[in-house]
Amino acid sequence: MIGSLFAGHLGRVAEVSVLCRREEHATALNEEGLRVSGRHDFVTRVAAATDPAELPEPELALVATKTTELAAAAARLDGHWPEAAVMTVQNGLGAEEAFDGRRVISAVTFMSGTRHSDTHVEYILDTETWLGPYGETPYELVEETAALIVESGLKARAFEDLRPAQWSKLIFNATVNAVAALTGLPHDPHFAARDEPADLGHLVFELVEEGKRVAAAAGVELHEDPWEMNVLATRRGSRHYPSMLEDVEARRPTEIAHINGSLLREARRRGVETPLQTALYRLIKAKEASYS
Amino acid sequence: MIGSLFAGHLGRVAEVSVLCRREEHATALNEEGLRVSGRHDFVTRVAAATDPAELPEPELALVATKTTELAAAAARLDGHWPEAAVMTVQNGLGAEEAFDGRRVISAVTFMSGTRHSDTHVEYILDTETWLGPYGETPYELVEETAALIVESGLKARAFEDLRPAQWSKLIFNATVNAVAALTGLPHDPHFAARDEPADLGHLVFELVEEGKRVAAAAGVELHEDPWEMNVLATRRGSRHYPSMLEDVEARRPTEIAHINGSLLREARRRGVETPLQTALYRLIKAKEASYS
Repeated sequence: MIGSLFAGHLGRVAEVSVLCRREEHATALNEEGLRVSGRHDFVTRVAAATDPAELPEPELALVATKTTELAAAAARLDGHWPEAAVMTVQNGLGAEEAFDGRRVISAVTFMSGTRHSDTHVEYILDTETWLGPYGETPYELVEETAALIVESGLKARAFEDLRPAQWSKLIFNATVNAVAALTGLPHDPHFAARDEPADLGHLVFELVEEGKRVAAAAGVELHEDPWEMNVLATRRGSRHYPSMLEDVEARRPTEIAHINGSLLREARRRGVETPLQTALYRLIKAKEASYS
Repeated sequence: MIGSLFAGHLGRVAEVSVLCRREEHATALNEEGLRVSGRHDFVTRVAAATDPAELPEPELALVATKTTELAAAAARLDGHWPEAAVMTVQNGLGAEEAFDGRRVISAVTFMSGTRHSDTHVEYILDTETWLGPYGETPYELVEETAALIVESGLKARAFEDLRPAQWSKLIFNATVNAVAALTGLPHDPHFAARDEPADLGHLVFELVEEGKRVAAAAGVELHEDPWEMNVLATRRGSRHYPSMLEDVEARRPTEIAHINGSLLREARRRGVETPLQTALYRLIKAKEASYS
């Protein structure tokens, strides 16, 4: 869905090819193009194939798979497009490491949409994508990429250091996704309520506090306070349906190992106690085990 | 279901009347009697009515409602059967207080069954019911009652002090019920697994530890270690479906406020920290909020 939003928009200002997993997806895109509806409305022509060798080498390869499919995506690019920079747009931390040896741009996105078909995506939340250099990647490349994304009609912002933003989003995501998946609640005002002792907001607050202690131990000064992000988002009244809640309702594997896992791995490395985040992790893993 | 198991069996060794909420339930019982199947198989004649005034005053009134219906049950007995002793069979602590001014026998039961209809209950787990005196109730009454239950074909045991057993069951129940309700898992070996760091057994163990600290602070020496109860039950392979899991799957209010609530109230009273049990409590309350 995120990949389609980027491909559709960028196709208006650059040559865009789409590397698909399924042959019928590639065929449909080649025949019909990619339709964006919702906040924007247009159809872009794209070149699509299931084999990178059939596509021209791009300057930038944008990888926006779910973290659960990241390793497979990286394996498919192996040996192809050696000069292309890679932009990773994943939840959690460490997606960049899958593309060692290439120039990598780190990104996190807050936009969202709904995938209606292989050739149609609806653009819903028109919030920003944040980009930053990874390793030796020059900041100029990040700025150029952000400018291109903005030119295409999406919102983007370049950061010299993305980690403060990445960490804010990580703590927010780990907490809101897991709590939603366990309770069945969309991201609604219950997540911010702290009036009664039994209110869910107390737990959300404490989970965020644990995450902030990990960030502090990792030497990261957060870009935004994840608790404030939570309060603002629930106040906007979007009642956003977190992807992990969608996953457990469809009895699919979740991104827990990548999102919450990257927070817990960092906590272990830094010697920070995270009893509540750890409890959520175990409960979600057990929920996945209940599918079978 | 527990009430029907008692009524069916006790009807073979004593006069039993059933106080029903619904008129058609009373009519069906009067016409067909109460059938027990499963481990035992027989039909007992019982007298049933929806008004206590239509039933003879019993020596013992057995109250086995869910805790969520306890207050209503107590209100219906108000002003009736002043000489009858009351035996409470509820999860959690404090059910006895609803019958202040009467002789009360405290009980917890480990047996289980399935209610097939208004007049048919299946007896599944033939485990014990434990009884003890509450307040000034003479222990002899408890022993007589336990003996009568045993004579009826069920398993029962009298304790001079039931609190150690009640607390063991409370800690076990609070933990297993809430974890099952959140994960969707029946009480299966995941609850005892502690091989990998993400394994659920670690969380169950820590939840039980919190409960044990509360019991210790309340001056209760546990009858059985709830962690051992958990390990043994999962090893038996019964994959028991905890009632709180049934409740959330049917989107019904759960017994969280009574079971886990009595543990947390006691923790607050004794100044014991219970961060994980508190987290579970908030998650289950939020799950209930997601029904609407």
